[in-house]
Order: sequence, then structure tokens, then C-alpha cells
Amino acid sequence: MKAEIIAVGTELLMGQIANTNAQFLSQELAGLGIGVYYHTVVGDNAERLTEVLALARQRADWVILSGGLGPTDDDLTKQTLASFLGRDLVPDPAGLAKLDAFFASSPKRIRTANNDRQVDTIEGARVLPNRTGLAVGNLIEDQGVTYVVLPGPPSELQPMFLEQVAPLLQQDQALYSRVLRFFGIGESQLVTRLADLIRNQTNPTLAPYAKVGEVTLRLTAQAASWEEGEQLLNQLEAAILQEGDLKDYLYAYGDDQNLAQTVLDLLRERGLTLTAAESLTAGLLQAELAGLPGASTVFPGGFVTYSLEQKSQMLGIPLEDLRAAGMVSAWAAEQMAAGARARTGADLALSLTGVAGPDKLEGQEVGTVWLGLAGPEGTSSHRLYLGGRDRNTIRQLAVLEAFHLTLKTLIK
Amino acid sequence: MKAEIIAVGTELLMGQIANTNAQFLSQELAGLGIGVYYHTVVGDNAERLTEVLALARQRADWVILSGGLGPTDDDLTKQTLASFLGRDLVPDPAGLAKLDAFFASSPKRIRTANNDRQVDTIEGARVLPNRTGLAVGNLIEDQGVTYVVLPGPPSELQPMFLEQVAPLLQQDQALYSRVLRFFGIGESQLVTRLADLIRNQTNPTLAPYAKVGEVTLRLTAQAASWEEGEQLLNQLEAAILQEGDLKDYLYAYGDDQNLAQTVLDLLRERGLTLTAAESLTAGLLQAELAGLPGASTVFPGGFVTYSLEQKSQMLGIPLEDLRAAGMVSAWAAEQMAAGARARTGADLALSLTGVAGPDKLEGQEVGTVWLGLAGPEGTSSHRLYLGGRDRNTIRQLAVLEAFHLTLKTLIK
Repeated sequence: MKAEIIAVGTELLMGQIANTNAQFLSQELAGLGIGVYYHTVVGDNAERLTEVLALARQRADWVILSGGLGPTDDDLTKQTLASFLGRDLVPDPAGLAKLDAFFASSPKRIRTANNDRQVDTIEGARVLPNRTGLAVGNLIEDQGVTYVVLPGPPSELQPMFLEQVAPLLQQDQALYSRVLRFFGIGESQLVTRLADLIRNQTNPTLAPYAKVGEVTLRLTAQAASWEEGEQLLNQLEAAILQEGDLKDYLYAYGDDQNLAQTVLDLLRERGLTLTAAESLTAGLLQAELAGLPGASTVFPGGFVTYSLEQKSQMLGIPLEDLRAAGMVSAWAAEQMAAGARARTGADLALSLTGVAGPDKLEGQEVGTVWLGLAGPEGTSSHRLYLGGRDRNTIRQLAVLEAFHLTLKTLIK
Repeated sequence: MKAEIIAVGTELLMGQIANTNAQFLSQELAGLGIGVYYHTVVGDNAERLTEVLALARQRADWVILSGGLGPTDDDLTKQTLASFLGRDLVPDPAGLAKLDAFFASSPKRIRTANNDRQVDTIEGARVLPNRTGLAVGNLIEDQGVTYVVLPGPPSELQPMFLEQVAPLLQQDQALYSRVLRFFGIGESQLVTRLADLIRNQTNPTLAPYAKVGEVTLRLTAQAASWEEGEQLLNQLEAAILQEGDLKDYLYAYGDDQNLAQTVLDLLRERGLTLTAAESLTAGLLQAELAGLPGASTVFPGGFVTYSLEQKSQMLGIPLEDLRAAGMVSAWAAEQMAAGARARTGADLALSLTGVAGPDKLEGQEVGTVWLGLAGPEGTSSHRLYLGGRDRNTIRQLAVLEAFHLTLKTLIK
């Protein structure tokens, strides 16, 4: 099965944004065992989009379009595809009801005639409701080619694809997949360890994917039944963990089961609470934890202690001692964790202090980070060196390392 | 003049990387007054690349290729273009000498026959030396079309383009652009207000772009000089603000001047500090502020007060009064802001409390948010309704609204 991705938007051709939707869709399609042969970007222009559609129809079974579903005159993807397929556009009643509710809910929102364009749907197409936005998507088969129309914003495109399109593709292919999540090993090292397995893959296939600080492996088996699929996946997983000696790095399974979610689940299971005192990360860790539904059962709140004075004042650390030890030190990390735990009464407390850059701090290199962890069994500190990276990557990695430290402590 | 960008690489079609080269080249070409009409991504496959070249030749004056110049068998961009143009490949002597020196400089480097492919050049082409890598680029004109071949790594592609290709592309008619940033008005409403201006645009052009919570307008003028460009942009900007009655929504200019940056700049200019007490956003606002270099001069730290108990304890709000008023209330927002200001000694303190969902809280609808702002002139509270959105969008919008409230207060 061949797929082709068409992104519509002059902002892409002007370089205002990168085509991250094509990257996301390519990853997902690869995981589903579907080959992507071309990406195309075309502007908000009906004539050129029509030419691109005519070409794609000749070379792909699935044509996936993103962007151009908004309310402005520029947004013409559904209009152009409808006319390419010789069909009409009709309003989707459910989408229209949602639009009505959206505008009814706040008197400040002013509805204009072009807003209704967003909920138009191509006659005969399957409507793809938009859980996180207003513009509805479409899926339509015509002369053996399936066209999928998705909204441009990644926050709308991703759930729509994952929840509504991927299951259809999976069904077609009888594919069974499993995601293994690793932390503490880089992608190139992991791929080197699995070189033979990757080279010889046929069924199941094996696709590594690196995000900031973690690597996932997607195993995809084509099989006649769920049982057969599971058996193939179990064999490959065993081979991966054994040949690659990767047991110590595997921390969870599944697309959404990232470190924060894994820690949250374990805390809930054990009935424990967690607080944090963040310096270089300044709330990133707490915001990520609280971004997960149900966080309020384990997370009472915490501290953003950015300046030296606030570390002392909010967490009850003697100012002179803190000055002497330094903010980026084992002592400071331990005091911060212990102080946060004492002040909130949480079962566990994390602290993060370090140098995100661009400049050195207290004479210490950019990338130097101390984590502290306080719990019923005492307080510990852990040094990380995350240098050679930019400010925000260092902060993100520090958050992941802190979640990983919590995870290791919880499962010990 | 029309340009088209072709990126070659199976790693792009697998989603392992995003096509940031196309974004970079598009930005640069826009700045040079050259319209980009298509981006294409094609795998490491001679047949498909030849088809893509045949199509590009029909629709562009400049065809810019990136990737596929490396030493592996997969790398076949120059080979394919040479055969498409009916020409031979010959080694570039200067590139070969650099390759010799590279391998001579470290005994650990092992040179294989394949390595020499990198310095091949298409007969009759201008060689583009690679200052930051080994693979040489090419520029060749054939039947009125100019082909440019650039290496895939951005660290090699960018200097090669900027230093060797851009100077050739300089034209008399350059483009001058300006970005206007609006907050508090939706894209569809803004576009409706500017419908006539958008419909009648020729020079300068006008492109709206919406992100979460804000809309930007890019104005682009084609002009013979900077002065003429500025004059055209000034006229259009005045028309936009007047016809659209948009003065109250414009808050800044420029690609990177988002709300957090604008607030940070103003605070630094005035020598003021800002703290925050965050409930539903749980550190998002503080993390965003601290993500900007130089934040430490204005941001001492703050509070993540997620539970009712921690709102009371960290900020000194009487527990029974808080229970009576409710956490999502004007009173709570004011107490939180005043408490955070008192406890940190900051000049200004923001508070954010509300219902991010998925469930109602204290009987209040998902999307109900109260902001508090405490300063030397007293404390105020502000109700928002951000319903009809998902949990994380509500949180992001609440942060933007809080920054906007601060901005309005600072410029009042």
C-alpha cells in the first residue's frame, strides 16, 4: 500500500513553519507498515492543488492532505478536492451544532459567515469530527484511491489521525503493533546494538524513533489473528532485549505512556503524593505532571525557586549556608527537596537546580544539573551533565531525568 | 522568478526528521523576492527522483535540491541529476584534496572507495565548495532552468546557500516584510474585518496566520529600495489598523516578539519583577517566562498551588474563607496574587485559577478561569471563559491571557 502526503499552505512555502505534519504522518504510517513515497507542499491555490491531486491519484492508494480547512478565503482544501472529485460540499450537522455552541458560549465571540466553511463536508465522505477544534475532516474513496483531509494545526491533526484514521488503516492491513519505550540510551547506540535485527527485519518490522531524551521502538507484525500477532511481537521483543542487552533501559510500553504518565500511574497506584522545587526548569516538571488528567490526586503543588533568595525563603534554607554551598550543588538540591517535602507534607519531593545557559552560573558549566529527591527514607542528590545542548533542551532533559529518578525510586 | 525545492532522503519519508531545509530555503528565497511554489520530498530512488526532476523542470526557473550527497550507496542525487541532464560526473580536485587531508589527519578514520563519491561534480557545473563538510555542491544551468544541489545536513546546507547561492540570486526587486502581532481577536474575525484589503492585495501582500490564542499578519512589499518598501508597508499597516479597527489588538511587531517576550522586555525596561501563583496552569507561565534568556532579572520565582490546602498554606489564605469563596473565584484569584506578591516581595504578581477539565470543579464549567493581578496600586481579578477546548489548550490560553493582562497593565 502506497501513501502520499500533501500539505496545503502558503505559510509553509514562505518558510514561516516547517512541515511537521508530514513528519508526524510519516512516522505513524511507517508504524502501520504503509510506505510513504512523496511529500508535497503546495500553496493556497486551487489550480496548483488540483494539479498536485491529479498527480497523487496516479501514484498512491492513500492521499493524505493537511491544512486549509480554516474559516478564511485562503482555506480551500475541501472545496478544491470536492470539485476535483466532482462532488458538492454540504454542512455537517454535528459540526454545525458544535460551531453554534462555541459561539453561543461566549457573547464576545462574533460569528461571521465564513466560519461555517469549517464544517463543510464533501458529499458522500465520512466525516471526521474534530475533538480539539472546529474544522471537520473528511475521508473519501474515489476510483480506488482514498483521500483523507485533516486540519493543519498539529493539536487537531494528530488526535484526528490517531483516533479516526489509524484504526481504519490498521484494520485493512491486519497489523498488530507494540511500542517499547527506552530511557537512558541514545538512538544511535540503540540502533547499533540492534543492527542485525534491523537489517534482517521483514515481519515484524522494527522502527526506532528518538524524541528529546528518549527512544521508542515500534514493532509491527502482520498476522492473521491477534494471537499470531502477539506471538510474533513477543519473539521480537525478547530478541531485542536480549541481543541488545536493553532490559535496563526499557521503562514502559505504549504510545502515550511517557515518563510523566508512568510516574503518575505508579504514584496513584501506591497512594503517594509528589511535590517539586524547580529552579532551572521553573515549573516545567509540575506543568507537565498537571497536564495529565487525574494529576490532582498525586500533586498538591510546589515551588518555582528561581532566585537564590527565593530558594532560601520559600524552602526555609539558611541564606548564608546556601550562598556558601552554591545554588548548583548537591547540598542545595537536597535542601530544596527536603524543604519542599516539609512545607507541603507530600510523600516525595523532587528538586531541580542547575545551569541552563546561555551563561555559566557560579563558575559551573552550562548543562550541570543537580537533582534532589526527598522521601520517607531520606534525601539524596544526583549529578547530571547535559552540556552541548541549547537552553530549552537542557531544561527538558532535566525534567525527564527527574521523572526517571522518581520512577527508579518507586520500583526499587 | 519561480523556485521549487526538492529534498531527497528516505529518512524524511519515514518521519525520522522534519524537512527543516525546505523551511530555511523558503525563508531565504522569500527574502530574495523569489516565489517558492512547491516543496517535494522523494526517497533515495533514482527513478522517482528523475520523475520529480522532469516535473520540476516544467514549472520552475530554479530547482533547489537538498540531500543525498553523502558517501553511501543510498546517496544518489548528483548521479541522478547528471544522468537526467545527460552529463558525466568528474571528481572535483579541490574537494578531493580536502578529503585526502581529512583522512590523513586521523589514523582512526578509514577511507572506503565510496567516500570519493562525495566530491564528484557534474561536468560543466559550478562547484560549490563545502566549508563545513566534505560533500561538494553543484550549480548548473540547462535549458533555461538552474539546478542547485546542496548537502542535507543543515550545518552544511545553510552556509553553502548563504555564502554561494544567495549572492547569485540577488535581484533588483527585493521583498521587504513586516509581521504584526494581534491578541484578543480570532483569525476569522480579523480576516472578516480585513476582507477588502485581502481581496484587493497585490503589492504589498497580506498573509494572516493563527497560532493558539494569537494571530499574526505578514505584510510583504516588493520594492526597489528599503525606503520604498517601508513606505508601502507603512501605508498598508495604517489601512489595516484603521479599516479593521484593530489598534486595540495589536501588541507587537516581529517574528519572535511573542507575548512572554514582550512582557519580559517591558519589565526589564521598567526595572520591575514579576511572580506568579498558578493553579490550573501549574507552572506553565513561569516555565515559559524562564525559558527566555535574561528572565532571572525580572523573575525571582513563584508558586504552583494546585490543591486547596496548598493555596492556603503557601500563600497564607485562611483555609475556611477559601473553602467558602471557592478556589475558582474572584476572591481566590485576588488572594492568591496578593499572597504571592507579599511572600516574594515582587513588584507584580499574577494568579491563575480555573477549570481545565475534563471535569467540572466546584460546580463550575470547564473553561472558567479567574486571573488575579497584584501590584503597587492594588489587586484586581478578571474572569475568562475559555470553554469548548481541550485541557491543554485551555491552560495555554490562560497563560497567554495572563501575559496579556500584565502587558495591558504595564502600558496603561
